[in-house]
Amino acid sequence: MKKLLFLTVAVFALGAQGSYAQDAQDKEKEKAMKLQKFDETKGFVGPADYFTGDVKVDAPFSSGDEFKDYQGAMVHFDAGARTAWHTHPKGQTIYIISGEGRAQTEGEAVRKLLPGDVVWFPADEKHWHGAAPNSAMSHMAIQSPDEKGDVVTWLEQVSDEDYTAEPQEN
Amino acid sequence: MKKLLFLTVAVFALGAQGSYAQDAQDKEKEKAMKLQKFDETKGFVGPADYFTGDVKVDAPFSSGDEFKDYQGAMVHFDAGARTAWHTHPKGQTIYIISGEGRAQTEGEAVRKLLPGDVVWFPADEKHWHGAAPNSAMSHMAIQSPDEKGDVVTWLEQVSDEDYTAEPQEN
Repeated sequence: MKKLLFLTVAVFALGAQGSYAQDAQDKEKEKAMKLQKFDETKGFVGPADYFTGDVKVDAPFSSGDEFKDYQGAMVHFDAGARTAWHTHPKGQTIYIISGEGRAQTEGEAVRKLLPGDVVWFPADEKHWHGAAPNSAMSHMAIQSPDEKGDVVTWLEQVSDEDYTAEPQEN
Repeated sequence: MKKLLFLTVAVFALGAQGSYAQDAQDKEKEKAMKLQKFDETKGFVGPADYFTGDVKVDAPFSSGDEFKDYQGAMVHFDAGARTAWHTHPKGQTIYIISGEGRAQTEGEAVRKLLPGDVVWFPADEKHWHGAAPNSAMSHMAIQSPDEKGDVVTWLEQVSDEDYTAEPQEN
């Protein structure tokens, strides 16, 4: 009986130690970087409900689990492709990586976008963005979720008339 | 006297109306996108205290005034260049845009980074990142400020021995 008790205690102690070691390992793991290797199969085609033309969304990412500060992705627009009109509850930043782009706030001029340009769309501002008619464009998009976790409200498509308006150069 | 009074009231009323119109205009303005055109003169050289080698920080940006969700920049590292060891109070995301890079969590293997790779460095995790020894590298960096507005704590430089360790491929 004593032997059985000893064994039970020993196994329990071992189990506890094992669990403690696992916790420590998990905690240690959380302290290490998370590397998300590029994988084209994880990208997705921009859905026809929200985009006109060919759009690919690559490498979606978000800030770590602990913080819900931002999420983002690289978005590639073929020439002529653009988002539908939309708003973001907490605004959005786009950073032009390559090509030539267009963007417009409702009621304002269409703007011409070039690599290195950064656009801040304020919260609830109705806008669209995309490639120029004759040039592909890639941009990084970064937006923060609201309390419900939402980042975007999609609206109607951008008409060809709006899209092809002569852009303001600067 | 009556005339003077009338004038005073009229000017005051005009002033008030002007101010109201200005407020409305400002509010309208907040609803429009803010386009920050690329300007190489607004970039800055990575300070020698925090970087080894030639580093250029371009187009720093942040989410709108209303939200302190994130800030970021494009960072170009010449071959062999890297940050010092550092930590971020709320973590950091880097997105590799071009070239070949390296990154390391303290006590872990050096990792090899290629375009499209995304790294999440958890809060308070000690790490460095930079170019490969024989390739320049550009990445977007995104981090959120803590309650005090801080985004980084800089530590010692990365030794050549640590930097040139054979990287883990994946």
